[in-house]
Amino acid sequence: MAVEDRVRELAGELESADAGAMEVARARHLALVKPPGSLGRLEELGVRLAGISGAVPPPVAESPAVVVAAGDHGVLERGVSPWPRGVTAAMVDNFCAGGAAVNAIAREVGARVSVLDVGVAAGLRDHPLLRRARVRAGTDDLSRGLAMSREDAARAVAAGAGLAEELIESGGVDLLVTGDMGIGNTTPAACLVAAFTGRPAREVTGRGTGVDDATLELKAGVVSGALELHRPDPGDPLGVLAAVGGLEHASLVGVVLMGAVCGVPVVLDGVVSDAAALAAVALAPGVAGYLVAGHRSAEPGARIALEQLGLEPLLDLEMRLGEGTGGLLAVPLVRAAARVLGEMATFEEAGLGGGEAAG
Amino acid sequence: MAVEDRVRELAGELESADAGAMEVARARHLALVKPPGSLGRLEELGVRLAGISGAVPPPVAESPAVVVAAGDHGVLERGVSPWPRGVTAAMVDNFCAGGAAVNAIAREVGARVSVLDVGVAAGLRDHPLLRRARVRAGTDDLSRGLAMSREDAARAVAAGAGLAEELIESGGVDLLVTGDMGIGNTTPAACLVAAFTGRPAREVTGRGTGVDDATLELKAGVVSGALELHRPDPGDPLGVLAAVGGLEHASLVGVVLMGAVCGVPVVLDGVVSDAAALAAVALAPGVAGYLVAGHRSAEPGARIALEQLGLEPLLDLEMRLGEGTGGLLAVPLVRAAARVLGEMATFEEAGLGGGEAAG
Repeated sequence: MAVEDRVRELAGELESADAGAMEVARARHLALVKPPGSLGRLEELGVRLAGISGAVPPPVAESPAVVVAAGDHGVLERGVSPWPRGVTAAMVDNFCAGGAAVNAIAREVGARVSVLDVGVAAGLRDHPLLRRARVRAGTDDLSRGLAMSREDAARAVAAGAGLAEELIESGGVDLLVTGDMGIGNTTPAACLVAAFTGRPAREVTGRGTGVDDATLELKAGVVSGALELHRPDPGDPLGVLAAVGGLEHASLVGVVLMGAVCGVPVVLDGVVSDAAALAAVALAPGVAGYLVAGHRSAEPGARIALEQLGLEPLLDLEMRLGEGTGGLLAVPLVRAAARVLGEMATFEEAGLGGGEAAG
Repeated sequence: MAVEDRVRELAGELESADAGAMEVARARHLALVKPPGSLGRLEELGVRLAGISGAVPPPVAESPAVVVAAGDHGVLERGVSPWPRGVTAAMVDNFCAGGAAVNAIAREVGARVSVLDVGVAAGLRDHPLLRRARVRAGTDDLSRGLAMSREDAARAVAAGAGLAEELIESGGVDLLVTGDMGIGNTTPAACLVAAFTGRPAREVTGRGTGVDDATLELKAGVVSGALELHRPDPGDPLGVLAAVGGLEHASLVGVVLMGAVCGVPVVLDGVVSDAAALAAVALAPGVAGYLVAGHRSAEPGARIALEQLGLEPLLDLEMRLGEGTGGLLAVPLVRAAARVLGEMATFEEAGLGGGEAAG
């Protein structure tokens, strides 16, 4: 079967989140020994986890993993980032050595780190944390032509889905965090957000890891020009990814899709993850019910993408690093939401009857 | 020595947070392998932890504890809450049994729970998690006279300080979270916030655990009337606590103060904790540098108190339960901020030179 058909088949396997379990979770929240609604958005999160797992209480994610998808970008030649291309490979080495921000935060929340080379230009050394699935040595310049072929986009999606499946089926992973590394990758992210939301380039383009005013201006122009050149059709997500995406973006579409198909919560990090989620939802609308927005990245496209996805982020700490850092920080909140449903006593159990107060 | 003098002496022992260590932490953040500032408020938090501990990297809090201070309130007779007084004692039993929200969340973040009976009206059973330091069987009605004597307020502060000292000195606790339980206690919290910020009753009074419009109206009237009756002087924090405070509020002043004196980060929960922090800062202004705002409670007085304290909360999940739940949820963020400073490689170490990109 052609790779594109495999992707479509995977999307077709998705079942909606379990509305019945969500209803049971809502009722349980009212029985637990606290004023109704007093845990605010933590209660909503618990309901979402019930929908994802189809169980009340939902399982506490004991074995989370962050997938850090890495790739390089032809559009970097246009000067959209002050960082040189070689930094992508150097950071992959750093992830494997355990010295990056994602490693420090993963240790804190007890998550394993899995690095996916789906399109790093430079050669990489083998390492136990590194999954080698390079589709091509980076994309072409999306401002001049397709970033990659449609088949390569589908292969990148399949690579992400394959790693996610392996982590869940063989590795016992029960929660996925999406992460990314790729110098220049907020430019394709902005293009994807614009393509799937219909918003203009200037609104979705941001400073990435911190470009100056002149580079921001140039970057918005590149995004705007690419949208005019390709006129991507949001009804054809693989076509959009091929035209203006990145290899790590496409692979995260696969991670998101496989997580949802396997009934595992997927916690999104920043704008690259949010852009991938838009593409995944375009492939299979039911995906949205399996997503948790870990944080709101400082990148403007992140806010716009999350609004379209109907997701309210758990954290808003003005972070813009990527790597999965913001998504990982939300993992204890996800686990706490599950514990509340599973470990709290009811009014009855606490000897408080439940009818004595109006809340 | 009179109890009040002991409180003053403790306040006098406080040293300011270490500005030199904060400067070193800022410089280290620039050397770590990430674009400058890209971890946003997590970087500021790391700098704060350096100031608190006087060390770079600051220690990762391995042994956090939440102190849940409990008391009852004479003002409950005015009808400021739909919950009956006996719920305070029943919830203390529930904390000890491990079935409350604070227990579930404490397990998630690896914190021990310590319950402080500083003024619960009903008799309580002994339990290993319960520290019995009852100053009196609840306060008097603050809308008709002093909530308690000045000496009782000082004794409650000393009880909190004593428990915090024991946890830190004998128990190895290296981070404190403040929590509270007391039916009716958002009314004295509102009075305290109004007294220390000068804001009108209507702005600082909220729905607590969820009162209806009529009760909210009544509650704001009670707060307003108490402020007119006592005209509390914010320059005399013990006088303010005696007039319009609660026993758990006063004891948390002691927890905050002792945490700061011992150089331990104190993570604030909701409006009762925030009100206590205002009083602690009035006793010793340097306390502010040792505080971390865990979350922004849905209670309006919380936002106003945090603004006055100059603290930006880490979480904003529309929670309003108290018990320490919102403060506990921020503990992994605090630990992650310390790990970033302690565990990330520098640009030099990662073989990236550091001068190749403009950020």
